[in-house]
Amino acid sequence: MSTYFKTADTYVTGSMTLPQKYYTSQDVFADEMNRIYKNSWVCVGHHSRVAGAGEYFLADVLGESLIILRDKQNQVRAYYNVCRHRGTRICEESEGRFSGSIQCSYHAWTYGLDGTLIGAPFMKELDGFRWEDFPLNPVRLHLWEGFIFVSLSQTPQPFEQAYAPLLNRLQRWNVGGLRVHTRHVYDAATNWKYVFQNFNECYHCPTIHPMLNKFTNYTSAENDLVEGPFLGGYMNITGGDSMTMTGRMCALPLGDLSTGIEKRGFYYTLLPNLLLNIHPDYLMFHMLFPTAPGRTTIVSEWLFNAEAFDKPDFRPQEAVDFWHITNLQDWHVCELAQLGVTSQAYTPGWYSPRESLLAAFDREYLRIME
Amino acid sequence: MSTYFKTADTYVTGSMTLPQKYYTSQDVFADEMNRIYKNSWVCVGHHSRVAGAGEYFLADVLGESLIILRDKQNQVRAYYNVCRHRGTRICEESEGRFSGSIQCSYHAWTYGLDGTLIGAPFMKELDGFRWEDFPLNPVRLHLWEGFIFVSLSQTPQPFEQAYAPLLNRLQRWNVGGLRVHTRHVYDAATNWKYVFQNFNECYHCPTIHPMLNKFTNYTSAENDLVEGPFLGGYMNITGGDSMTMTGRMCALPLGDLSTGIEKRGFYYTLLPNLLLNIHPDYLMFHMLFPTAPGRTTIVSEWLFNAEAFDKPDFRPQEAVDFWHITNLQDWHVCELAQLGVTSQAYTPGWYSPRESLLAAFDREYLRIME
Amino acid sequence: MSTYFKTADTYVTGSMTLPQKYYTSQDVFADEMNRIYKNSWVCVGHHSRVAGAGEYFLADVLGESLIILRDKQNQVRAYYNVCRHRGTRICEESEGRFSGSIQCSYHAWTYGLDGTLIGAPFMKELDGFRWEDFPLNPVRLHLWEGFIFVSLSQTPQPFEQAYAPLLNRLQRWNVGGLRVHTRHVYDAATNWKYVFQNFNECYHCPTIHPMLNKFTNYTSAENDLVEGPFLGGYMNITGGDSMTMTGRMCALPLGDLSTGIEKRGFYYTLLPNLLLNIHPDYLMFHMLFPTAPGRTTIVSEWLFNAEAFDKPDFRPQEAVDFWHITNLQDWHVCELAQLGVTSQAYTPGWYSPRESLLAAFDREYLRIME
Repeated sequence: MSTYFKTADTYVTGSMTLPQKYYTSQDVFADEMNRIYKNSWVCVGHHSRVAGAGEYFLADVLGESLIILRDKQNQVRAYYNVCRHRGTRICEESEGRFSGSIQCSYHAWTYGLDGTLIGAPFMKELDGFRWEDFPLNPVRLHLWEGFIFVSLSQTPQPFEQAYAPLLNRLQRWNVGGLRVHTRHVYDAATNWKYVFQNFNECYHCPTIHPMLNKFTNYTSAENDLVEGPFLGGYMNITGGDSMTMTGRMCALPLGDLSTGIEKRGFYYTLLPNLLLNIHPDYLMFHMLFPTAPGRTTIVSEWLFNAEAFDKPDFRPQEAVDFWHITNLQDWHVCELAQLGVTSQAYTPGWYSPRESLLAAFDREYLRIME
Repeated sequence: MSTYFKTADTYVTGSMTLPQKYYTSQDVFADEMNRIYKNSWVCVGHHSRVAGAGEYFLADVLGESLIILRDKQNQVRAYYNVCRHRGTRICEESEGRFSGSIQCSYHAWTYGLDGTLIGAPFMKELDGFRWEDFPLNPVRLHLWEGFIFVSLSQTPQPFEQAYAPLLNRLQRWNVGGLRVHTRHVYDAATNWKYVFQNFNECYHCPTIHPMLNKFTNYTSAENDLVEGPFLGGYMNITGGDSMTMTGRMCALPLGDLSTGIEKRGFYYTLLPNLLLNIHPDYLMFHMLFPTAPGRTTIVSEWLFNAEAFDKPDFRPQEAVDFWHITNLQDWHVCELAQLGVTSQAYTPGWYSPRESLLAAFDREYLRIME
Repeated sequence: MSTYFKTADTYVTGSMTLPQKYYTSQDVFADEMNRIYKNSWVCVGHHSRVAGAGEYFLADVLGESLIILRDKQNQVRAYYNVCRHRGTRICEESEGRFSGSIQCSYHAWTYGLDGTLIGAPFMKELDGFRWEDFPLNPVRLHLWEGFIFVSLSQTPQPFEQAYAPLLNRLQRWNVGGLRVHTRHVYDAATNWKYVFQNFNECYHCPTIHPMLNKFTNYTSAENDLVEGPFLGGYMNITGGDSMTMTGRMCALPLGDLSTGIEKRGFYYTLLPNLLLNIHPDYLMFHMLFPTAPGRTTIVSEWLFNAEAFDKPDFRPQEAVDFWHITNLQDWHVCELAQLGVTSQAYTPGWYSPRESLLAAFDREYLRIME
């Protein structure tokens, strides 16, 4: 076994689920969006979505529409999607390619890909109008292993400091070199924490995931991140070579199989919004965008080795279908959890010994919130 | 005429309709849900819906999902639909039959029909976990004449005390022995009190109900319950033998016709949520479940003599259609009342002499609310 | 050029757009509905919609349903659509003709077209019920050039005083003698002020309106009302004789073309809710009915010379289509403005020299609000 991993997590007897208000209160929700989402680095996608200069996509973070683009110097940048003239939303298409500049459709104010205001009809007539005062508003951005993170905070913690425990952890899979194949957007009627918690246990697998449960022994999880904002570990895949509809690998491996990634699924939750699911031949990740105490947009993307796309035996749909089916099963029980927690009869219950990471998640969450 | 009945109600000149806030204010609504609905016995259905052991249906009371079931000892019981593990909603199907136990679909925690926790994977490993502390949360329940009442109060008034004026009033119709044939669920954009008030007068019958109005003289109502939480009386049916599409009786009589039930329709409103409509050959009742100041779910059920179902001349649709048409007419005018009362031009108006029961309803309502 | 017009507006350098709260705050919205809409004369339509005695239509102003009708004395009147018995909404059809009286469908209380209560079953039995105390509640109404204005204020400013700057301004077009041909109702996800502001500038025309932009030089606007609640002026039509799909006039002229109305489009915004768009051969007007900070119902009507309807070369659709296409373009950018202004990145921006009327609108708006 890789030296990365140790089974260090210990179930604390009597760990209880969170009180109701953390799932239902509008005030708590506003508070956690401020304390947790606004102050953190939020993942909005993988840089392979903007492979060429001028390519962009829109991200919706905390109700803000953001333009994520690659500029002419090959830098990935982020801007608020707001014209500096009268505040109009500029881009409507969720993704596309700018032909060298960004033009607002209302009065044709135009910006360079670096955000500079380069065109504004009649404004030259105005004394005192300083063009350099009206660039697109930039958003702080950080790239890590190909993942694009943004922060809406004025004073974010430096990324390397915030993500120190993880910085080198994904090297084996060459994540920065992967390429997005499929993207699904789910709208789930549940609190975002239920999605996090659900991802951190396989206690539900026999009941909810009959297909997935054939591949792994749900009691076999080995967790290496057991406390703090980043949690998770791996499970051995015993029912096949990978978690796919056929049990076969469906693409080139992501890295050297001998480094401990063969026949294993790795599962990590990264506060506040990133869930990683890494298999020998593909990586799926979820991004969570909470919109209300009981509502979460979940964006899921499937990435493969960039070299795999041209191979004759590239069968990505076997991975996509496997997890799309599994995702829907998960969101559904998360919705049932949300329905139940609103009851006046709900009281915190005991976590089972197989839910130690959930108790750890709750501890970290309460540490920030209280 | 039966000795039950006397025409004791007297119209109080100048009785006025309620001020606007009682129909539109979110605060008043919250207050009345607490004072009236939470503190009362709320009807959720008739016991013939759970005729056999293990049969259940879900009721939605004050936003709470409740499981109503018949256990192996033939007792009707009610539980909050909330798992004691992590609070997940357990049942999703609105009705069905448990095969001896109730299992949560998330992590397979399992309960007996008596609510006892009988299965919970891995929890045996935990010192200090007391299984007997985690049964399904029971809900207080009372059966009266086959009607199932629940109370979400911790300290409800004893049912026999609350319903003392009514306890023996339905004996002639053998209501406990009737059987549900049809169930309709209506969603009406109106305050629940408008439905109550509409049920308590036939002043609207000539305008709204041309079909019904052929059967009864709308000025002929004889009320025997004229003050307090229970109101109503009967009307003579002059246009046929019963209120059906054909005017014929469509099923075996509910009781001995010579006891005063022949060619009469009996109408009672039982605060907080039960409206009874009893004819010689069928009983229809409405259950009101307010969801907002201007929104009410109305569940209507048609019951017949259990022995009638196998008879060749059983034509229940003649009663179902008659009242479904009439119900839709009623809900519509209640919706118009709700639309009007939101106007700044609305001021309380005079009740007519044919609306004495509405004034009585308002008096009882204000007695509780003020 | 007509002596009516002078180019008196001067752009004030550095005029800035309004702060965010004026477009997004629920409190500001409630405040402006009270200060601006409730205290003003609100246009609800043109009198040609109720040409004959008994004809009526419903208007929805500040959440109030109003009955606008023509009575037997040929007077246009307005009433709250609320029965004086129990407050029920009386009329449901959005337009029609009363056959001499107005009857509530619930309990048949009946009113004359002058609002008098003339029928109420059984109320004669009641001592002390004074029929004259229960007429339909009247709404203050004023006719100007055929436009019907109502006020929900108890103490409105006299119309002639409020509209003094405009009173004789429309005489050339014989507006009172025009006739409604087409009516469109739009639901736009934008603040009402964005619609006002959009109407007051053609700076957006090259980008948004390629079809319209062929007819006029967007820098050619001559404004004659440049400060206060009424703003606007005219533009020369250089691409045709009128603004229609073909560029031809599509109906008889509205007045004597030699009075300065030939080949010109006149554009006026009248606070709080009327936008006028007058061309040689038709008049289009918009009425704004705000329903939320980010939502506005826009009712647009196209009027023509009453004598034009019978002419063989009456082609009204050429005007209707032209503006329906243009309207949709306008509402869309107004919706983009609303989306953008909600961003935390929004800050007031500089108006261009071509947006002087918007700055004037904002000044008048702030004068009332602050």
